[in-house]
Parts: sequence; C-alpha cells; structure tokens
Amino acid sequence: MYLENGGVEVRPEPEPRRDEGWAVVRVLLAGICNTDLELRRGYYGFAGTPGHEFAGEVVDGGPAWLGKRVVGEINIGCRDLGWPDVCAACAAGHNRHCTRRSVLGIVRHPGAFAEFLTLPERNLWQVPDNVSTEHAIFCEPLAAALRLTAQTPVGAGGEVAVLGDGKLGLLIAQALRAKGADVTLFGRHPGKMRIARGVRGIVGRDTLPERQFPVVVDATGTAEGLRAAVAMTRPQGVLVMKSTVHGAVEIDTAPVIVNELTLIGSRCGDFGPALAMLAAGQLNLDPMLSDQFDLADAPRAFDRAAEKGVLKVLLRP
Amino acid sequence: MYLENGGVEVRPEPEPRRDEGWAVVRVLLAGICNTDLELRRGYYGFAGTPGHEFAGEVVDGGPAWLGKRVVGEINIGCRDLGWPDVCAACAAGHNRHCTRRSVLGIVRHPGAFAEFLTLPERNLWQVPDNVSTEHAIFCEPLAAALRLTAQTPVGAGGEVAVLGDGKLGLLIAQALRAKGADVTLFGRHPGKMRIARGVRGIVGRDTLPERQFPVVVDATGTAEGLRAAVAMTRPQGVLVMKSTVHGAVEIDTAPVIVNELTLIGSRCGDFGPALAMLAAGQLNLDPMLSDQFDLADAPRAFDRAAEKGVLKVLLRP
Repeated sequence: MYLENGGVEVRPEPEPRRDEGWAVVRVLLAGICNTDLELRRGYYGFAGTPGHEFAGEVVDGGPAWLGKRVVGEINIGCRDLGWPDVCAACAAGHNRHCTRRSVLGIVRHPGAFAEFLTLPERNLWQVPDNVSTEHAIFCEPLAAALRLTAQTPVGAGGEVAVLGDGKLGLLIAQALRAKGADVTLFGRHPGKMRIARGVRGIVGRDTLPERQFPVVVDATGTAEGLRAAVAMTRPQGVLVMKSTVHGAVEIDTAPVIVNELTLIGSRCGDFGPALAMLAAGQLNLDPMLSDQFDLADAPRAFDRAAEKGVLKVLLRP
Repeated sequence: MYLENGGVEVRPEPEPRRDEGWAVVRVLLAGICNTDLELRRGYYGFAGTPGHEFAGEVVDGGPAWLGKRVVGEINIGCRDLGWPDVCAACAAGHNRHCTRRSVLGIVRHPGAFAEFLTLPERNLWQVPDNVSTEHAIFCEPLAAALRLTAQTPVGAGGEVAVLGDGKLGLLIAQALRAKGADVTLFGRHPGKMRIARGVRGIVGRDTLPERQFPVVVDATGTAEGLRAAVAMTRPQGVLVMKSTVHGAVEIDTAPVIVNELTLIGSRCGDFGPALAMLAAGQLNLDPMLSDQFDLADAPRAFDRAAEKGVLKVLLRP
C-alpha cells in the first residue's frame, strides 16, 4: 500500500531486490501503530509505504536466514546504507541513534504494509517456535515498552504509574508487571484496563494523585497526559516520556526544577528481551487483537484502527 | 525590608527569638538573586522579608555556634518546624524535598534582607577563615550550581555546554571548569563571559550547534533558551534544567523522545563542596560583585540588580 497526503491506496509493488548483507522478507502479518495513523494524518510529510510492526519469512538472504520466521528492528544504520564511513553511534552499536539512519516504514525505507520488505540481516530476529505470528507482531512495540527498563530502574516491587490505556500503555503496564513492578494504570476504559492482569486500574482524570509515584510513564500522547504525569511524579522521581505529543506542549518548568524530576525520552528497544517475554507467555495479548484485514483492504483497516476503543489491527498481505 | 505586591519598603523588624536547636544570626552581607527579583515582580504571591543568600555571625545559639561566621542552607525541614512526626524525605536527610518545608526568604520564613535571621543550627555551615564575607555570599548559588554534578556525571574532560551568562550561568561554568570539565559558555555579553576563565565563550544565538553536547545546562531562565538547549543536546545526552522559566513553556516533545534525551530538574545543593571550592580560591568572583548598598537603600539596590549587565548586588544591614 502507498500513503501520501493523508490518502491510503493499494498499488502494485516493485520487485524486491536483495543487496549484500540484506534479506528479502515476505510479510506474513503487519500491525497498525498509532504512528501509522499519524502518518496518515499528514504528520512528518511522509510519502511511501508505511508499516514497521511485522512478522515474516525470509525468502531471499544468507543461508543462516533463508526460510526463517522473523521479526526485525526498524532502524537501519549508516553502515548498511552505503556510506563510506561508519558514524560513532553505529560503531558503538547504537544504530537507533545514527543521525543518517533510515527507519522501516517511517523514514526513507519502504515498510511492512506490502507483500515484501527488505532489511539488513543484522536487524533480524528469529521468532521462537512457541510464539504465534499474531503475537510476534507485538515484538516491536513490546521492545519499545521494555526500553524504559534499560533507562530507569523499575524492577521487582517498584512502584510505577502508567498513564494511558491505549495499545502502548497496556503493553507497558503488562511488561512492567511481568518484571515484578507494582503497577497502577490510569486510563479511561475499564474494559481495556482489565486486559492488563495484576495491574491496578484507575479510571478517570479527577482523582490523579499528586507527587506520589517514584516512576511515572506517560503513554497518553496528549499534552494533558504529560502535564498530569509531571504532577504525579514524586520529588526526585523519574518521568518516562514514551509517546510523542504532536505539536508543541505547554509545560510549567517550576515543578520539574523545584521537585528535581528526571524526564527521560524513550523510543525503540532491543528485540531480545521482548522476544523472551513473548516466548514466556507472560502477557495477555489475544484481547488486544481487535481486527484483521487483507492488505487490499488497507484503507478500511486504517479507518478501523482509528476508531475509539479499538486496539491492534492487523494487515494480512 | 519588607516586600509585598511588588513593592519594597524598609520597616522596623521584630525582635529575633531563638527556639531550641535554632540560632539567631546577625546578617553581615546578603546577596540579591534573580528569585528575589521575581518575588518583587509579584510572582509566587510572596509577602514578607526576602533574601536567602547571606553570610552572618551567630549572636544567639548553642555554644558550638556562638560567635561563628556562618552561611546557611535555606530549606527548613518539618523536623525543625514542630511537626509531631518526621516525613520520609527529612528522615532520609533530604529536607530540600520535604513537602512541609519552609524556605528562608522564599516560603513562610523571613529572609536575610534584615538585621537578623533565624535558622536551625543543622542548616549552618562555618565559613572558612580564608573565605571573605563577600565571597561567602556565593556559597548558596554555588551549591546550587554544583548540585548538578551530583545528578549527572560531568567530570574531568567531559564536554558540557552552559547556556546563559547571568550570575548563575557564570557560576556554573566556573564550577564545572574547576571540576575539570571542558566547558563552552553560550551567552550575549563578551565582557561577562570573560569572567569565566578557562571557559570557551560563544556569543550570539545564530550559531548554536545542534545535537552536539553530551551534557547541556540551561541557565537562561527563558523559553527560547530551554528550546535551544534541547536542540543542542546530543542523542542520549543530558539536559540539566537549572533556571525556572516563569509561566508555561512551549516544548516540542519529539526531539526529547526520538533522541532519548534525559532532562533533569536541578535546584539547591550541599554547602560542603561549595565552601571547599570557595576556600580553594578556584573561582573568579570579584568581577561578579557589581554593587553594594545599605539595607536602608534596599529599593534602590533592587532597581540596580534588575539593570541589564549587572551581576551580584549586595545588601549591608
């Protein structure tokens, strides 16, 4: 499928071509993320094939990969993009922060809402046999959810508040719970919040406790959510900013400085811990699979994914 | 002196009274800080005697303190305010984050622009003999400047940018330089920036480098400064928010999240390291002493402190 100026259309795809060190992957399933909905809204001036959550089968690649069922990290560093030199970030293994990177389905590289995609083999991860292809779709967002555990210590018994009961908030709440944290999820939909088993769910915005949590995760994607997160964080606590708010956000710097809060921006994560968590079957994912469409019905799938209360919508090439 | 509704007037003071565990201090000199100027502008609805940078002599107190020349930490925790219980923050020795705290000259406790002030003895620090009373005035803001070195590793050889060449920015730049950091100071006044010896000074706002510094300190007190600081911080870098911006600041959350920045609010610090740095004579403070007034001339001193290009203005009771 092709997305431009906010319009989604299904087009014939070019023949996939394999470069040295790269693999051609036949997409088995792909998931629609809020970022994809933002691309459709015309944000970031995106034009091309979106899609960065997928599971597929390697149909052209090195012998170690051929025929394997895989997921793939979405940031493509400069060393795989034909630059004569390798930047410091890539050399240190942080191609997520390569300033020359392409990103699958987001920046300069065609994405997963297609029959085939290409990725460097170094980006691929084999899906364990006991993880279904539907669940493997959650690897990318789960890795993003778990990223925060590498940035701030949230472990066994640690108290943490998660704001937002959308797809990302539910994954974060479940992942932190699986890590043993004492999680309170603040949201608006009791039905959704019940998906996150073992997590305390609090509905409504009027009852937000102030300066209470040592760690707060904002997964609302709204300015009000971010402001509430600031207010809920305990002095010297940590606020993890997990979802971008489109446009400028008005923030009062006084509580951040007076209470000496630490605000941490958090984006993509390692696939290893995410696959391990999927393989361990610790998450309640089936209720998060709201719908599935043929790729030819991509416009309808996008409409469905944008409906209130709908969680993950899958595309089937 | 007394400040209310933005007006400064000199009034007779009440007789100082000593409570158990407290000391009465005769103020020798006090410094006007930007926070005092904000109080005069009517921010925070302050009414009372401001002033929190001082050096004085203990005229009533325990035998260990009587007659000593002292400076004092400005946060007064609940254990010294007559509460029947002690909060967790104070019990952990973090009375700076006691939610029931008073703050000298800022929150519910009369400040240093007076002949006498009172503070708990546990807040006092003796001034080393080789530190002049004028230099001792810088202990409080220097402690605040050094606070960031306890929150983020900025040490020998570490590259750091400081934004803002006001009083606080100059102290931060000098303190980090004294710690061995490789400091670049971005400001507007070449004359002021030259005070910070051994620090690279860059004038002008059009040449701000993007995504370059692993550590950036915002001491501008302006929304533009904070936004520039975000842009200048390298991916996965640290931005220390050192000066409050009055009112709401519009921030784009995308670079914070995409580049996974860490923003750290930073306020007051320990006096010990600040006094040690003053005693070592590592800072160029004399050019930062712009003017001195009798306390009876407090209104004029405030006007002077608010003039462009003026650094520290002292009050002499």
